[in-house]
Amino acid sequence: MTDTTIKQASFASSLLANRAAQLKAGAAPAAARDMIAFTYGLPAEESFPAKEIAEATAWVMQHQAASALQYNSPEPLSEFLIDYIRKEQGIELATQNLLVTAGSGQALSLVCRLLIDKGDYIVVEAPTFLGAVTTFRKAEAEIVEVPLDENGMDIDALDKTLTDLRTQGKSVKFIYTIPTFQNPTGVTMSLERRKHLLEVAERHQVLVLEDDAYHGLLFEGEVPPWLWTLDDKGIVLHCGTFSKTLAAGMRLGWLGGSADLVSRTAGLKDEGGTNPFAGYIAAKFAENGRLERHTNELSNLYRRKRDRMLSGLERYMPDGARWNIPHGGFFIWVELPEGLDTVKMLSKAVKSGVNYLPGTACFASGKGNNTLRLAFSFVKLDQIEQGMRILGEIIREEMESDA
Amino acid sequence: MTDTTIKQASFASSLLANRAAQLKAGAAPAAARDMIAFTYGLPAEESFPAKEIAEATAWVMQHQAASALQYNSPEPLSEFLIDYIRKEQGIELATQNLLVTAGSGQALSLVCRLLIDKGDYIVVEAPTFLGAVTTFRKAEAEIVEVPLDENGMDIDALDKTLTDLRTQGKSVKFIYTIPTFQNPTGVTMSLERRKHLLEVAERHQVLVLEDDAYHGLLFEGEVPPWLWTLDDKGIVLHCGTFSKTLAAGMRLGWLGGSADLVSRTAGLKDEGGTNPFAGYIAAKFAENGRLERHTNELSNLYRRKRDRMLSGLERYMPDGARWNIPHGGFFIWVELPEGLDTVKMLSKAVKSGVNYLPGTACFASGKGNNTLRLAFSFVKLDQIEQGMRILGEIIREEMESDA
Repeated sequence: MTDTTIKQASFASSLLANRAAQLKAGAAPAAARDMIAFTYGLPAEESFPAKEIAEATAWVMQHQAASALQYNSPEPLSEFLIDYIRKEQGIELATQNLLVTAGSGQALSLVCRLLIDKGDYIVVEAPTFLGAVTTFRKAEAEIVEVPLDENGMDIDALDKTLTDLRTQGKSVKFIYTIPTFQNPTGVTMSLERRKHLLEVAERHQVLVLEDDAYHGLLFEGEVPPWLWTLDDKGIVLHCGTFSKTLAAGMRLGWLGGSADLVSRTAGLKDEGGTNPFAGYIAAKFAENGRLERHTNELSNLYRRKRDRMLSGLERYMPDGARWNIPHGGFFIWVELPEGLDTVKMLSKAVKSGVNYLPGTACFASGKGNNTLRLAFSFVKLDQIEQGMRILGEIIREEMESDA
Repeated sequence: MTDTTIKQASFASSLLANRAAQLKAGAAPAAARDMIAFTYGLPAEESFPAKEIAEATAWVMQHQAASALQYNSPEPLSEFLIDYIRKEQGIELATQNLLVTAGSGQALSLVCRLLIDKGDYIVVEAPTFLGAVTTFRKAEAEIVEVPLDENGMDIDALDKTLTDLRTQGKSVKFIYTIPTFQNPTGVTMSLERRKHLLEVAERHQVLVLEDDAYHGLLFEGEVPPWLWTLDDKGIVLHCGTFSKTLAAGMRLGWLGGSADLVSRTAGLKDEGGTNPFAGYIAAKFAENGRLERHTNELSNLYRRKRDRMLSGLERYMPDGARWNIPHGGFFIWVELPEGLDTVKMLSKAVKSGVNYLPGTACFASGKGNNTLRLAFSFVKLDQIEQGMRILGEIIREEMESDA
């Protein structure tokens, strides 16, 4: 096939269309099979409930094929979610409060399409999820960072940022946060901060987009209620996903919030109803508490991986390196001594068979040169120690060559 | 859940966001189960290969779960398509010429997102596919109609329209056509017209978007090669779908074209790679010629339904009604005597247990009051005669009350 000869095949004027080739990050990366792969927050392949999904499919094909294979929406999955959320969070939803989406990635895009004009502002915690920042950039939003610590986003700093932006006449459309097992830091926002966040957001009249991608993957302790659950003003939009607890490849997630916001996003979906084939099967899989049981098994697996990584960090990291202990999720965030450059170091690590995500990828502003994100989710349990040993050696070498 | 209290939750300024609630047509309509349903071009439920899909799923879950359930793209389906298109159309594609999408609906949206700025022009044949017009309107395009006859789009009229628009300084981004078993008229564009269309498009330097939704559903005779196959200038973008030949609920379609255009659209997808779970299963189902065999069986079924509808039309339609004989696809287009209003008539039909699509829904300009589209695809074979009898009675009553 030749390239087009149409000279005036001018693309849409948005940054989006013209930069689309560079912005391909949307398509998820395949894991490098020959690597000890700490880079991406991919779910553990050894945990996929393949047999149970095949059984659920056989049942759906026998009993619900006329609905699951037709143009349709995955109603049973919406019903499952409404029921699950009632039990888990104690909130009562109507169908219009919930939209099943093609993963939470599509939910983020739809919120942008609903709310964002070029130049509108979005406030994020820093560091944050690379994929969300890419989506916000595609929507031509301006991104402003607020720091976070071991209790989550710094709400006083948020308050000040919102005041400053308002003073400058900027239009802030929403605050984006991952309050539980945050990506990339693993920290969980305290109940007190959650309440404070809602108070600040309402005072500034700014919506909150809560991303709970790692829901249920709890290793110990407790998790405060959702921001959405604590919200009685209809200012929280909430997105969740089945990618971490069931199967990323089924592309199922959801957007929740007040009906006047959520029902509008339904009309913004490109492809009509979200994949009913996958949706009906997921609902069948999930029924009778099976999704919760499976999520508990996953939590056990990921806890073991986290522990293995923590003991590797203890053993192999040089003095001056610091990391958190996440109580759930996929990630540990590591800060190396100032002056080290994890971007530069990466090629050396890859040559030695280990990869990771340089922390700069998690800051919209590109800072964080001495930081890195380690995903313990995808790598096999028995490879973690070796990976940490290699990584520790490389970091020590870097420190010595720097000295 | 309350509605949001945020007063300034101002939506994005585009028509898109503000009209989203009204533009929900994107979500496909469920068929009214108690109707003789001639309205929507839904595939026949009795034809769904449910058992074979369950078997394909079992195989994929046993052998490819690590890929099909992970963040991924459905590579096997791309490979199937490249192979199929080589054999069927004799064109040699690279991976970059093809993007698997969530149905062809998403392909249409992506093309708009790539090319359309507010106020850009799209030329369509009239009447045309309602869903495409909705998508083009969401993209804030201006839509210009060119008539079609029993040989497809009137290319001389197209030529004149493009000249006029250029004279007026309008930016025409593409020509949208369904050249084979057109929706809603069922007509197929002749080879001569196809060549003429390409000549005109290239002379005016305008891209062509070819929608081949009813591919393979041929009842008799032959179909000319795709516009894409005849194109040696890289000016055709082509979209296809598995919704009619495998299962609409699996939401699988594709966009083809020159690599410089198609590769850019990949980065515009909201949700990353198109559903790998559905894609791997579809590829397994399709292998070894099974999709072609299944499509042939479907053609036999739909041919019988068409024939039943044609004999019903002969028997029950009043003098002055005219219709075409489609050689494939899902639809028959009926023109009633001038003065009849099929929009007004619809409520009476529904009360009698029959529905259809008023022809006005198929014109961007809203004309076509005396026309209607009858889908013979979804309705059960043994209900068609009764449906046609009821419809014939209602039309006769209307004519008498008009007289």
